[in-house]
Amino acid sequence: MRTLWDKGYEVNEKVRKFLVGDRLEVNAELTRADAIGSIAHAKMLASIGILTEEEFEKLQEGLVEIIELSERGEFQLTIEDEDIHTKIENFLTERYGEAGKRIHTARSRNDQIILDTRIYTREKLLKVEQVLLALCQALLDFSERNKDVPMPGYTHLQRAMGSSVGLWSASFLEALLDDLVLLKTAYKLNNQCPLGSAAGYGVSIPIDRQLTSDLLGFEKVQNNTLYVQNSRGKIEGIVLSALSQIMSDLSRMANDMVLFYTSEFGFFTFPDELRTGSSIMPQKKNLDVMEVVRAKAKIIFSYCGLEYSLIESLPSGYSRDTKETKKPLLEGLDLTISTLEVCELVVHQIIVNKDKLREACSPEIFAADRAYQLVREEGMPFRDAYRKVSADLNELKKMKPEEVKNLIISRDHLGAPGNLGLDKLQKQIDEERGLLEGEYDFLESKYSSLLGERISLRN
Amino acid sequence: MRTLWDKGYEVNEKVRKFLVGDRLEVNAELTRADAIGSIAHAKMLASIGILTEEEFEKLQEGLVEIIELSERGEFQLTIEDEDIHTKIENFLTERYGEAGKRIHTARSRNDQIILDTRIYTREKLLKVEQVLLALCQALLDFSERNKDVPMPGYTHLQRAMGSSVGLWSASFLEALLDDLVLLKTAYKLNNQCPLGSAAGYGVSIPIDRQLTSDLLGFEKVQNNTLYVQNSRGKIEGIVLSALSQIMSDLSRMANDMVLFYTSEFGFFTFPDELRTGSSIMPQKKNLDVMEVVRAKAKIIFSYCGLEYSLIESLPSGYSRDTKETKKPLLEGLDLTISTLEVCELVVHQIIVNKDKLREACSPEIFAADRAYQLVREEGMPFRDAYRKVSADLNELKKMKPEEVKNLIISRDHLGAPGNLGLDKLQKQIDEERGLLEGEYDFLESKYSSLLGERISLRN
Amino acid sequence: MRTLWDKGYEVNEKVRKFLVGDRLEVNAELTRADAIGSIAHAKMLASIGILTEEEFEKLQEGLVEIIELSERGEFQLTIEDEDIHTKIENFLTERYGEAGKRIHTARSRNDQIILDTRIYTREKLLKVEQVLLALCQALLDFSERNKDVPMPGYTHLQRAMGSSVGLWSASFLEALLDDLVLLKTAYKLNNQCPLGSAAGYGVSIPIDRQLTSDLLGFEKVQNNTLYVQNSRGKIEGIVLSALSQIMSDLSRMANDMVLFYTSEFGFFTFPDELRTGSSIMPQKKNLDVMEVVRAKAKIIFSYCGLEYSLIESLPSGYSRDTKETKKPLLEGLDLTISTLEVCELVVHQIIVNKDKLREACSPEIFAADRAYQLVREEGMPFRDAYRKVSADLNELKKMKPEEVKNLIISRDHLGAPGNLGLDKLQKQIDEERGLLEGEYDFLESKYSSLLGERISLRN
Amino acid sequence: MRTLWDKGYEVNEKVRKFLVGDRLEVNAELTRADAIGSIAHAKMLASIGILTEEEFEKLQEGLVEIIELSERGEFQLTIEDEDIHTKIENFLTERYGEAGKRIHTARSRNDQIILDTRIYTREKLLKVEQVLLALCQALLDFSERNKDVPMPGYTHLQRAMGSSVGLWSASFLEALLDDLVLLKTAYKLNNQCPLGSAAGYGVSIPIDRQLTSDLLGFEKVQNNTLYVQNSRGKIEGIVLSALSQIMSDLSRMANDMVLFYTSEFGFFTFPDELRTGSSIMPQKKNLDVMEVVRAKAKIIFSYCGLEYSLIESLPSGYSRDTKETKKPLLEGLDLTISTLEVCELVVHQIIVNKDKLREACSPEIFAADRAYQLVREEGMPFRDAYRKVSADLNELKKMKPEEVKNLIISRDHLGAPGNLGLDKLQKQIDEERGLLEGEYDFLESKYSSLLGERISLRN
Repeated sequence: MRTLWDKGYEVNEKVRKFLVGDRLEVNAELTRADAIGSIAHAKMLASIGILTEEEFEKLQEGLVEIIELSERGEFQLTIEDEDIHTKIENFLTERYGEAGKRIHTARSRNDQIILDTRIYTREKLLKVEQVLLALCQALLDFSERNKDVPMPGYTHLQRAMGSSVGLWSASFLEALLDDLVLLKTAYKLNNQCPLGSAAGYGVSIPIDRQLTSDLLGFEKVQNNTLYVQNSRGKIEGIVLSALSQIMSDLSRMANDMVLFYTSEFGFFTFPDELRTGSSIMPQKKNLDVMEVVRAKAKIIFSYCGLEYSLIESLPSGYSRDTKETKKPLLEGLDLTISTLEVCELVVHQIIVNKDKLREACSPEIFAADRAYQLVREEGMPFRDAYRKVSADLNELKKMKPEEVKNLIISRDHLGAPGNLGLDKLQKQIDEERGLLEGEYDFLESKYSSLLGERISLRN
Repeated sequence: MRTLWDKGYEVNEKVRKFLVGDRLEVNAELTRADAIGSIAHAKMLASIGILTEEEFEKLQEGLVEIIELSERGEFQLTIEDEDIHTKIENFLTERYGEAGKRIHTARSRNDQIILDTRIYTREKLLKVEQVLLALCQALLDFSERNKDVPMPGYTHLQRAMGSSVGLWSASFLEALLDDLVLLKTAYKLNNQCPLGSAAGYGVSIPIDRQLTSDLLGFEKVQNNTLYVQNSRGKIEGIVLSALSQIMSDLSRMANDMVLFYTSEFGFFTFPDELRTGSSIMPQKKNLDVMEVVRAKAKIIFSYCGLEYSLIESLPSGYSRDTKETKKPLLEGLDLTISTLEVCELVVHQIIVNKDKLREACSPEIFAADRAYQLVREEGMPFRDAYRKVSADLNELKKMKPEEVKNLIISRDHLGAPGNLGLDKLQKQIDEERGLLEGEYDFLESKYSSLLGERISLRN
Repeated sequence: MRTLWDKGYEVNEKVRKFLVGDRLEVNAELTRADAIGSIAHAKMLASIGILTEEEFEKLQEGLVEIIELSERGEFQLTIEDEDIHTKIENFLTERYGEAGKRIHTARSRNDQIILDTRIYTREKLLKVEQVLLALCQALLDFSERNKDVPMPGYTHLQRAMGSSVGLWSASFLEALLDDLVLLKTAYKLNNQCPLGSAAGYGVSIPIDRQLTSDLLGFEKVQNNTLYVQNSRGKIEGIVLSALSQIMSDLSRMANDMVLFYTSEFGFFTFPDELRTGSSIMPQKKNLDVMEVVRAKAKIIFSYCGLEYSLIESLPSGYSRDTKETKKPLLEGLDLTISTLEVCELVVHQIIVNKDKLREACSPEIFAADRAYQLVREEGMPFRDAYRKVSADLNELKKMKPEEVKNLIISRDHLGAPGNLGLDKLQKQIDEERGLLEGEYDFLESKYSSLLGERISLRN
Repeated sequence: MRTLWDKGYEVNEKVRKFLVGDRLEVNAELTRADAIGSIAHAKMLASIGILTEEEFEKLQEGLVEIIELSERGEFQLTIEDEDIHTKIENFLTERYGEAGKRIHTARSRNDQIILDTRIYTREKLLKVEQVLLALCQALLDFSERNKDVPMPGYTHLQRAMGSSVGLWSASFLEALLDDLVLLKTAYKLNNQCPLGSAAGYGVSIPIDRQLTSDLLGFEKVQNNTLYVQNSRGKIEGIVLSALSQIMSDLSRMANDMVLFYTSEFGFFTFPDELRTGSSIMPQKKNLDVMEVVRAKAKIIFSYCGLEYSLIESLPSGYSRDTKETKKPLLEGLDLTISTLEVCELVVHQIIVNKDKLREACSPEIFAADRAYQLVREEGMPFRDAYRKVSADLNELKKMKPEEVKNLIISRDHLGAPGNLGLDKLQKQIDEERGLLEGEYDFLESKYSSLLGERISLRN
């Protein structure tokens, strides 16, 4: 096939392969996004008289067919197609002649690929929210079940104070809800329509950028045409930065699980279906899955840093370096989704070993409580109480399980083991779910209008 | 002086120095934040009967004095003081006896340092917003003055299409306004009150965390006590991630300026007060300042990555690794502020060389406009128009300056050179300034109540 | 198929997929390395009586067949095979019964995958050296051709002093020769035989680790069995760090080329086969390939950082996180090779625009030379000479091309434009080539012995 | 004072402060290096007749005095001095008139600061080697003392096989000896004399670069003058990359120590002088120092990445961005030295809890040994033996301590617990110490010649 910029010469084979890299595979995923964007663009072109209504309908039909072909795996890019945009234009031109040649009016591959990425990212971010909320629910349920189960609280990995399994698990839940704030900010910044910026300097055609943006359900037009180009990689970095925070929290949770699963701690164990064996040590059953979660967190963060470094030294305006911003974004989104899913699966199945936990709540971890008791009951200044307890740690006696539990739960100010605030957290999860459903409904109605058929984005 | 945890033995000198590192200097900056937080904490302790009203008043007086001493440079940490918290408690105990020994009731240095950092960061983030908005205004004014000045638009650093100086400068303005969204999200997540989490497991005292939070003007209590500890480094990373985006935009702007200032481009020049010389080449006048902006951007990003890496592999609960999260945050905030200030200074003084710019708008950059003309005026499909123009590039003639300008400005859809939307951007800047002033007013009133005197956070 | 550690239960499908990730594809590349390592291991087992000579021969035959199948694409991993080691053991057991079940004696998949990676990396590093030396040769030839072609030398991207095209190109040649030192250090550290460390704690079999190491042509046995495991990711990071330095140099060279190819500089141009076009701007011919080189450099460095971060927080002994160390290494090696190849291709074809270069050598860049002249000829102290020239820059007159060239070339101390030392550099390249050929010969003879047939590693 | 490039105008105060940053403090450390380099440069200038012998002697005298003043803290940079080079030239000019004005002949601040950094780095790298070898010795002694002390070996942090404390500690020793290879490569690449490259394009004076290089004891002249400039940041990055590997190993060792010091593991404890307390929990004694080691490792790696990112996108030739390459290098060197020292201190004082270790060697960790026994004694194929043991793990009985030890030690192939090869490692340490002393002697003799007095670099 012919490149869109064909000038009658061939690019060196080695150079061509080097430029394409693994783009082939990556672009295929964006086919649906590209087709939907093209329909909206065509509709706008029709509204300003560049296309006739009939031409628009033909192109719409062709683009819907491309989506279907693509879903059946029959619209594969080959090394001959320069990219997905070229393949689609060539397909439409072959099928519909003139109309096909007009589809690229008033846009460039530069704004088109940004549009595709924004559409694709938007849908994946909703999916991230969905699985994140599912994990939040799993953590909340687990916290509820284990809110009264004593666990030593650690500082410096040394036993510090009495804590609870519920406090531990709910801490990740709250972290994830903070991450959701970042996720929604990234969603908002991604949700700007770049189309019409063309190569970064606009077009000499009186296009209606607001219309295209509205048709595609974007929150707003990304205004300055040069900024649109310069924001490539930037928005990607912002998305990956939000994903990194999620992954960092999961990494720490995974790290704790690996530790709590050791013979030495022994607080948690897991069903066989979550464990793997060794090729030479017959007794081993490892929690590999949580180790891989840690590793994936590092991968996502390296992707985030890569986005940043790819663009920070570029001059204004499009440079080809930015093509490398796509792969880390796409992989990062998928990895985050699968990691969240795996974590949800694991959280549901943690087996809590209450005996080991109780045993680990050794008397000295109640030293601070004892000092506070002296403050409360005898009015002793805290620093004196601290010194008194410090001087005679042996005074701290082994307590009965029930006493241990009660002492821990008696710390009941906001956020303490005896007052996790799970009801409020449940309410927050429910509200976020409602907002998410609303956004799904909104996008589905927009896409359905464009495609002329009802489609679902929730899978 | 005595450590708060004194147990009758000395820590090895080498270890002690290794642990302190350059913390001395860093902590001094946090003295005011620590004192304000301590007043709020004392007031809350008084409200639940741990301190008498009289004790509270003494402590408040002592803490106000500490702030004054500190501002006069008379409250310096030495290697003997373990940290600022210790120094303050020791000062208060020496001065007020019992009351001083009670100040640490129901809190730990762990939640205290987080509180100090949040208070400090909050104020610095407002300052970042302030100087960012000042730079936005400078960019807007510059864009207004230069909106009709033709400039070649580049892709791949090759002349691509006709653009304008105003489009170039306004692109950074819009980028910075997007960054402001990130900045405000970081502000929001930072604006959670950690106090009362103590060492991460709460305290056996019925403290009123909501009251302390309200007294200090936080948006909400950061609930789960373990999450509070785990969020150390996380919030810092989120703040630095927002700063990184700002710096990345400034880096690209700086990069463009360095390029446009070359003899070869020659689009911009700068007054002498912004340029430095060489020790061996008599003719040199360099724009070092913009090179340093680029470098600082890399430093900020490395700080951002450092925050992330410091915590992602830690077990839940406090570990000393997190003490290293403070320095990159504090330096990052200051560096971003000074970089924004320097950029504002430079943007105001760019000297635009219209002749060089005009000369650079060579005929071939209007090839796309010519193709669009064929589309508009002759109804030719875009791909055919592209090929026609491509086949005879010599047809593109040199135009008169006025024609060049008019052609560029005739691209007037949303965000194009002829329609930058500066009015809307001015409105947005003004609104953001209003919000910023409101937050300053709110915090000043809170702090003034605590200190018993009117203080200003705007400098 | 059956896992090697089969315990009669199934791992959850989601977990299994998450664990495998994209390992399938990656491992296939290591098949040959694994088979060669297995032959050496079997030979050692035979030498200590664990295998009979006959069993060894069968296994050798089977392993040679696996290599052949693999090269014909007929030994593909599927999701059912846990990994390449499992597939090979299962294949051998099916084919040869008992002997197959004995092949895993005295090793673990943990030391086996490290061995595979070391063998694979060793060969790829030789390839990197080969293409690096080819690029050095291209740079040397280009420098020789252009050693007398004047070019402005820049500091701060401002014209600074007269320089030459040859000085510019030879600077990269010397950088790459320094990189070669790093590459050879990485080769050396990688060239340690890990086999026999098993899961990190050795085996209760009196294996002869030195023999296996010698058979495989390693420089030495990597001794401490736990260090072997802990060095996974470490050696990978060291390799990628060396590759990063190469890529950083290529990135800067690419950056210069992009700049020198602008209309404004215009120093270099390139034949069409190295340039690509735009879909909307008919006139564009871009040097995308050099932009992608820059981007790839950033990718390699992010891989380097990833290796480091993956392992730095792990406890001693194998953790599954380390499986993620493989992909960045393998991709990093391939990317560096293809980037070096592309750069060699481009360097050969740079078209030097002598007119533009001459024009850019404006009189003021000889100010320092003028000051030195005053020092040399009039004995004036340098600082006085500097000030005298500085005060009257207009005294510097436009020179004839020949004068410009002569003045530049007259700077002829070591390493200056007039004395590039290309002969010495050629000698160094030749010596390195000789060493490389020697290492190829050595490894080929070792592999040929193991496989019972002559094989070539040079392609 | 006057800048070297004084042109009769003042640089804007804000810009000046932004440019200087924290350079003041940093540069002071380089004073001695600068003075030594200046003496060598002056001697060379005398050898080619630019200075008289008498002038050289004056300058030498003045420079020696500067070193003495600087060591007494009486040669402090102020904000008025632009940099150390300027301050020194001004000092010499004031003192010796003409001779002072001639010192800057044939060099630029660009090559001068590189020279200073190389000299400074060279000395610090020797110090790193020295403390690294001291830590190696501490690890070797500890390994020797504990080579027969059983310890569980872990994979996935699960007990895997019987191991020994000596195997654990010797694993870090071998890692550090590999790091030493990297360190020496970095030393070699740093040990190239940059002087004479001036601003990157050489000078119009027939300088003798080989002589200066020899006088300063460099291994060779760094030839290409442009490469000298481009290698700024590159060499720094290579040094920091070597330091990162050291720190990564120390981080893992520290991580293990923190884990082994938990109540749950309880393998190690430490004397009070290495532990610190908590302000609210009276019972706590924490190993903060090893947590800080982990954190410092991350800081060093972030510095390494920063060096890389600072330069990878720069055009050829000096840019001011590179001034930021100095601080991370200097801090990185010092941090690595202090971390190695602290680790040595700690390794000497580890208290090994043999009872806890013995207890942790639970029977199942000998499952693989049992399988190997079946292979050895009954000739059973390994896979069958594995399955047999796997099917009846309860067959593994608790052994007596002596049996446990003997079983572990019976694994005695190269590098296994029973054969650590400590003698060979001691020999290697001794050899490296000898080489280090030789290099110290060589540099001291060179410096003594230049300064006219005996100086010691070993402290």
